[in-house]
Amino acid sequence: MVPVNQWIKIKAPATVANMVCGFDILGFAVNNPYDEMEMRLVHLAAGQASITIINMDDYNLPTDPEKNVAGAALLAMIEEYTANSIIEKSLALDSTENTSTTSSSLTENELVDFSKIGFEVKINKRIKPGSGVGSSAASSAGAVVGANYLLGNPFSKDDLVRFAMNGEKVASGVKHADNIAPCIHGGVTLVRSIFPLEVIALPSPTLFVTIVHPQIEVRTADARSILKQNVQLKDAIKQWGNIAGLVAGLMKGDYDLIGRSLEDVIIEPVRSILIPGFDDLKKACKAAGALGGGISGSGPSIFFLSKEKETALAVEQEMKKIYEGLGLAHHTYVTTINQEGVTIEK
Amino acid sequence: MVPVNQWIKIKAPATVANMVCGFDILGFAVNNPYDEMEMRLVHLAAGQASITIINMDDYNLPTDPEKNVAGAALLAMIEEYTANSIIEKSLALDSTENTSTTSSSLTENELVDFSKIGFEVKINKRIKPGSGVGSSAASSAGAVVGANYLLGNPFSKDDLVRFAMNGEKVASGVKHADNIAPCIHGGVTLVRSIFPLEVIALPSPTLFVTIVHPQIEVRTADARSILKQNVQLKDAIKQWGNIAGLVAGLMKGDYDLIGRSLEDVIIEPVRSILIPGFDDLKKACKAAGALGGGISGSGPSIFFLSKEKETALAVEQEMKKIYEGLGLAHHTYVTTINQEGVTIEK
Repeated sequence: MVPVNQWIKIKAPATVANMVCGFDILGFAVNNPYDEMEMRLVHLAAGQASITIINMDDYNLPTDPEKNVAGAALLAMIEEYTANSIIEKSLALDSTENTSTTSSSLTENELVDFSKIGFEVKINKRIKPGSGVGSSAASSAGAVVGANYLLGNPFSKDDLVRFAMNGEKVASGVKHADNIAPCIHGGVTLVRSIFPLEVIALPSPTLFVTIVHPQIEVRTADARSILKQNVQLKDAIKQWGNIAGLVAGLMKGDYDLIGRSLEDVIIEPVRSILIPGFDDLKKACKAAGALGGGISGSGPSIFFLSKEKETALAVEQEMKKIYEGLGLAHHTYVTTINQEGVTIEK
Repeated sequence: MVPVNQWIKIKAPATVANMVCGFDILGFAVNNPYDEMEMRLVHLAAGQASITIINMDDYNLPTDPEKNVAGAALLAMIEEYTANSIIEKSLALDSTENTSTTSSSLTENELVDFSKIGFEVKINKRIKPGSGVGSSAASSAGAVVGANYLLGNPFSKDDLVRFAMNGEKVASGVKHADNIAPCIHGGVTLVRSIFPLEVIALPSPTLFVTIVHPQIEVRTADARSILKQNVQLKDAIKQWGNIAGLVAGLMKGDYDLIGRSLEDVIIEPVRSILIPGFDDLKKACKAAGALGGGISGSGPSIFFLSKEKETALAVEQEMKKIYEGLGLAHHTYVTTINQEGVTIEK
């Protein structure tokens, strides 16, 4: 356990959810952009809330813990920490076969009493909220990974994903894990099942990622509400052929198979109408040599994967050309897949 | 090329399509049961059809080549062989990157003139028609693999899958490849796309397969017609989580993940009502230690996968118990995944 008042620094990566054909199940973390956070345990004054959020940026996000995504994630964690005997939990975890479990190093004396001790969290959001690259997930995931470290790592990664999903509920109304899972685990992740939660790390070959964030607002809740609740069986079959192809391509390191599988016949045709220039941009990026790509999460950011860095840079130029042509402000990133997830600077 | 009149012997394995969650895209071949065939090239008498089918079993299947699945597959092959210059095709195939291509060893002098030469095919069906373990696919696949061998292997495996799909159209009205692909390639196969055809071989760990064939008739066409043409998005998401999990599980050799992923929330709830005792049988097989399983293709056969042979044998006993209890005649098989596909006895 980290002593009270000692700050730790946290780096929480942006993430691309869905990965084109894997709506609500696939996602990956990238090395840029990322959020910076600082956290410490503090002694609480009488009546002081157990979580204090301090914004270090200009986004004016809520600081009320219940309305802040990091706060909501931490509240879920404190609740479970307090409700269960951590000692018993640790023993139980040790006896499971879950190899991703980080078992507790706490002794009974070290248990934290959250009526007397709380978390102070400074958040410097470098991932713009609403950009579609997991800004809320980075805050939630960063907070719970940091808190777990401060407490001596009593919780497993799967526990942390579960807690952080409470932040996603605050942000979008839905407890989804397709950004949280890669943000915490790093790499490409498959959320095979939400209830019960099962996250599977998928190996992947070296991939370069080009992201463009056109400066328009697409609310996750809106992007969800326009989706049709029913899909045609024939489209579903195409989609699961592509998902199976993408998983096989990633695991075999077969770039062409990855490229061919990056097609979405269900979500993209509906959501892409919310993003100006999407069709032209897709054509231009593929013509520039990208393996494939599409909407990042619920948008408006768009990502494309490339085998070579040079291609990823050429793709960036095409993206800039399209949005300069449309007179739309935008940011671009050329980066790689982040394999570590949230990290603590030690 | 094999000399005219020289018989070859062919073994064509049964196959399990869908593999529970992979409707229309996944399938695997098994070592038992299998069809036996013999084929040769013959000089045609004046006016004689280019294909002669001889049934060596008691199923009274049509011998008119257009109505026989093996005949329909061979007709498609002869048409393409005759329409294209095989020499040009061979050169074109050599220049592609498709490593599964078996390039032609034909010279121009060896080209077969199908107005003068034809195929004679003896079929001994050991896979009962309508059993749901790819009986029609075995005949179509066996015929085209045999014919390709007789002609000196001018066609690739992907070509052969395409030809054999014409047999499936005769059998069920639909050109599906989820039995044909594993029958020709062996192992577990993914049909990522039908048009254009793309078959991907998936590695798998050792798996024991228990199959029960209750002696009732379920026509493939009927089993297709009762399916709903629309599925709920939330069910589709569950299904593609399981498909991704199954592919990852097979490739990682993770038996537990394979087991957890063998769930079908879309097709099985509808089709299983056609199969007496399905729910009880599923419970009993899983209780006996099977990883998971479900309907083989469109039924009525049911398959379960096990990690150990002893478990597969215990599963067989549960299957027998259920169908003896129902007073329903049945066959069972305990076998393994066939890795070779159709083989020629040399």
